[in-house]
Amino acid sequence: MNVSTLSWIDGTNRDGFCRMVEQTLLPAEFVEIDVKTVPDMVDAIWRLAVRGAPAIGVAAGYGMLLGIQQEGGRERGDLMKHIKSTSETLAKARPTAVNLFWALERMVLRAQTDFEGGADSAALVAGQFEEAKSIHTEDAAQCRRMGELGADLIKDGMTLLTHCNAGALATGGMGTALAPIYVAHEQGKNVAVFADETRPLLQGARLTTWELMQAGIDVTLITDNMAARVMMEGKIDAVIVGSDRIARNGDVCNKIGTYGVAILAKYHGIPFYVVAPRSTIDVKVATGAEIPIEERPAVEITEGYGKRTAPEGAKVYAPAFDVTPAELVTAIVTEVGIIHSPTTEKILEAMSRA
Amino acid sequence: MNVSTLSWIDGTNRDGFCRMVEQTLLPAEFVEIDVKTVPDMVDAIWRLAVRGAPAIGVAAGYGMLLGIQQEGGRERGDLMKHIKSTSETLAKARPTAVNLFWALERMVLRAQTDFEGGADSAALVAGQFEEAKSIHTEDAAQCRRMGELGADLIKDGMTLLTHCNAGALATGGMGTALAPIYVAHEQGKNVAVFADETRPLLQGARLTTWELMQAGIDVTLITDNMAARVMMEGKIDAVIVGSDRIARNGDVCNKIGTYGVAILAKYHGIPFYVVAPRSTIDVKVATGAEIPIEERPAVEITEGYGKRTAPEGAKVYAPAFDVTPAELVTAIVTEVGIIHSPTTEKILEAMSRA
Repeated sequence: MNVSTLSWIDGTNRDGFCRMVEQTLLPAEFVEIDVKTVPDMVDAIWRLAVRGAPAIGVAAGYGMLLGIQQEGGRERGDLMKHIKSTSETLAKARPTAVNLFWALERMVLRAQTDFEGGADSAALVAGQFEEAKSIHTEDAAQCRRMGELGADLIKDGMTLLTHCNAGALATGGMGTALAPIYVAHEQGKNVAVFADETRPLLQGARLTTWELMQAGIDVTLITDNMAARVMMEGKIDAVIVGSDRIARNGDVCNKIGTYGVAILAKYHGIPFYVVAPRSTIDVKVATGAEIPIEERPAVEITEGYGKRTAPEGAKVYAPAFDVTPAELVTAIVTEVGIIHSPTTEKILEAMSRA
Repeated sequence: MNVSTLSWIDGTNRDGFCRMVEQTLLPAEFVEIDVKTVPDMVDAIWRLAVRGAPAIGVAAGYGMLLGIQQEGGRERGDLMKHIKSTSETLAKARPTAVNLFWALERMVLRAQTDFEGGADSAALVAGQFEEAKSIHTEDAAQCRRMGELGADLIKDGMTLLTHCNAGALATGGMGTALAPIYVAHEQGKNVAVFADETRPLLQGARLTTWELMQAGIDVTLITDNMAARVMMEGKIDAVIVGSDRIARNGDVCNKIGTYGVAILAKYHGIPFYVVAPRSTIDVKVATGAEIPIEERPAVEITEGYGKRTAPEGAKVYAPAFDVTPAELVTAIVTEVGIIHSPTTEKILEAMSRA
């Protein structure tokens, strides 16, 4: 079965905690840590012990619980202030993680709504528990739904290529890109995976390979630059990746290297699938050209393995993401359905569904 | 100026030696070693202290000199046997290096020709010196000629992308793929380079970046999977690579990842140039499909830099080379001219020239 990346362990007396996989130790060691305080949760997010946009959102909700579960004895106005300040503390864990802010805003909005509805302090705390758990269960349900829809694209005997890690380790459920693979496997289909190692941070080698092996799925690791050769040899039936942000025209922003894989897939006549919940689609962004691309520190390339592998003073360019134009995307799998050959019209229609 | 990868230092009394860059220490340290015995030369080739097909050929010739320079006092039949046994010892240094065998055969053939012509032992040794130095000077001259011809393809202000290391460090001269860049730079053209790091062995990061920096050429290091993004951003005017073997139809075998770069170049409308001497063209091979692709050990991917970055027991596929079909090759630059849009006819014509 899939790895459980993080979970809330209820206490007997509002002394629960968040148990999570310590991802920085993977793949050498599988260790779970119990995060029991807000500073420890900030640290866990900052250190990338938990990473992947949906998983960070879930962690943020649980971080709020760590901060308030013992505070039910406060006066309710004072508790509201404490809820807000806890969310501000957690928001500093990673300054560019959109899902972190999204989850914290959702938690604070729930508190505000409850407060305005006259909730007392105990009810405010109870509401926070409900909301944090909803963030997690909704994420898991979305993953499964994408998995079920996406599994229809996977025929018995297929081999898929994936890039980076958009799996269980990145979410509160079974992942995005890997969810259809897990469901196809559950359905008894014979499915195999090639995983790009995904330089510079090697999420494919460290995380995707690991979690697929845990699930008993046949996975083969390659370096990023082997993908073209593997396609040419006829080994790949489809490419499947996640996304960090999708423009309303269907341009897909994802981990650096995704765009190259999409071009290679096109050249070899291989379908290129993106699996992402609708929350990834940013309708305010018209095309991928508007998405700012974060640059990563040079040291991840020049000393990526703890050992210097490029000359002192070497100039480096290190975009962390790239944008795959919609024309290279065969389909986007969302929790409300599959958008084939995405266009602005089709995406807006999917966004308007209940 | 270019790095001198290896050279023969004449002694006063047939006690010369081969000085070479210790490439295993690059880029952290620039150290030259003096190789003075046949076993030390075998070791240097085996350890990859010297690598790159043309450079290995030059090293093999000098290895022969190390074995025979003191043996001029032997009876000439005995010396011939010694020459052959020295070549057999050197041939074991790297069992798949075609240029190693080519250079050793050339040395032995020279000895045989001299022997049959009646040469005495001193003349046999002198002939070996002449031949070893010819291998080196011919290689250097070919590199420069390819550089001069290829420089015509490089306009002032251009930026080129290269993959792996086909530079001075791989040859006895100024390199193959990098030669046109060095000549364009000499001509006062403003030329910049993006270097793919080239997983798994990082020849781009370790060697290409280093030697271009030594020559004062503007070089930017990227991971292999950033090439598509860099092209999309309009940063690349041409791709330029070397080759390990070219089929007579123009299919180009080169370091893994080259084929992917060629597809990306095609998608972005960027010319894709291959620079290689005619000795790289194997007219016995009709197409790239006939070229066997060596697989490398998994450990280079799973523990690339002394640290495990993939799970214990992970399955790995690691082809060391790939084949770029002729249709993706804009031109092949050889020492006798540029073959535009290569075909079997054009290649056979180039091979037949004096």
